[in-house]
Amino acid sequence: MSPPTIDFWFDFASTYSYPAAMRVRPLADEAGVAVRFRPFLLGPIFKTQGWTTSPFNLFPAKGQNMWRDLERICSDEGLPFRQPSPFPQNSVLAARVALVGLKEGWGEQFCLDVFRTEFGQGRSIDDASVLADVLSHLSVAPEPTLAAAISDDNKLKLRAQTEQAQQLGVFGAPTLTTADGELFWGNDRLERALLWARQNS
Amino acid sequence: MSPPTIDFWFDFASTYSYPAAMRVRPLADEAGVAVRFRPFLLGPIFKTQGWTTSPFNLFPAKGQNMWRDLERICSDEGLPFRQPSPFPQNSVLAARVALVGLKEGWGEQFCLDVFRTEFGQGRSIDDASVLADVLSHLSVAPEPTLAAAISDDNKLKLRAQTEQAQQLGVFGAPTLTTADGELFWGNDRLERALLWARQNS
Repeated sequence: MSPPTIDFWFDFASTYSYPAAMRVRPLADEAGVAVRFRPFLLGPIFKTQGWTTSPFNLFPAKGQNMWRDLERICSDEGLPFRQPSPFPQNSVLAARVALVGLKEGWGEQFCLDVFRTEFGQGRSIDDASVLADVLSHLSVAPEPTLAAAISDDNKLKLRAQTEQAQQLGVFGAPTLTTADGELFWGNDRLERALLWARQNS
Repeated sequence: MSPPTIDFWFDFASTYSYPAAMRVRPLADEAGVAVRFRPFLLGPIFKTQGWTTSPFNLFPAKGQNMWRDLERICSDEGLPFRQPSPFPQNSVLAARVALVGLKEGWGEQFCLDVFRTEFGQGRSIDDASVLADVLSHLSVAPEPTLAAAISDDNKLKLRAQTEQAQQLGVFGAPTLTTADGELFWGNDRLERALLWARQNS
């Protein structure tokens, strides 16, 4: 029998996706659940509810609390934390590269490294040379990979993935969705989502 | 030495305040932290960010998830759950009565009973006769209590409490604030807030 599976939806621009990405694989392994990394873009989804930037920028009190909360979480988890500027980062290129990597077997490590680069070091992930650095450290050739990332095929793939997220009811990141249609939003729901997947598969 | 204290800010209209109110006292006792119930009104705070109703109504995908999430939480916690209609309920009278009760020693139990009435039974808490029922069950005389609740003094007290919440940076409910100025938002942060209060007092 194959293990229960769960989809882990995230946007590289999403702050709480950082600790969630770092936590989800060990937690899923422990729970005996197979997790699939699904990068997508929040921007088009936010646009449909009239938001042109992150709600953390639109609602400053909420944003201020989020940064402090994230700092506390990273401290609790032993993760480095540094706020990137500008926020949110443009995550489209990183997401496109991640899709290439997830097909080729190095995608998950690339995702973790991008999150660490962005929210651990505060570097700009919309800069192709920063992503090239990340790829080099993974011994992946940057030039052909970045070329594959911006191919029409791959662009369409990311667009389709974002549309699928929206159809599943995803409205924020990170989100976990289960095979039986349950949706769990937020870094705070990882454990509950994995338990659900284990009990209802 | 007096124990560390924490303020528990909530609005009776707030969905996640229901499980939080039910959980906070036992958790605080276990942590050796003194908790103070602080009812306030979210409405005036939401208005300053341009919202005229609950964000769960303004952003339907988020609202749909919240109801499902709350249902799961209540099930996990063994709490009855029934969605009140309309949502959000007008919570001003309940908050005013709670302030009277918190002064007189029956306030905390009243708060728990109001939450159970609203989100456990789906009854309307803006109805004075419903609140009178709750009071009667606590052996508190409804008529003089409801009269005290709508006295000018008590109305001003609730207004001042809401202003204090806003000055502390409270933007949602439930929220916990500590003596050293730390703020924790959400039912998901109760445990972390209490740990903070214990470690930083």
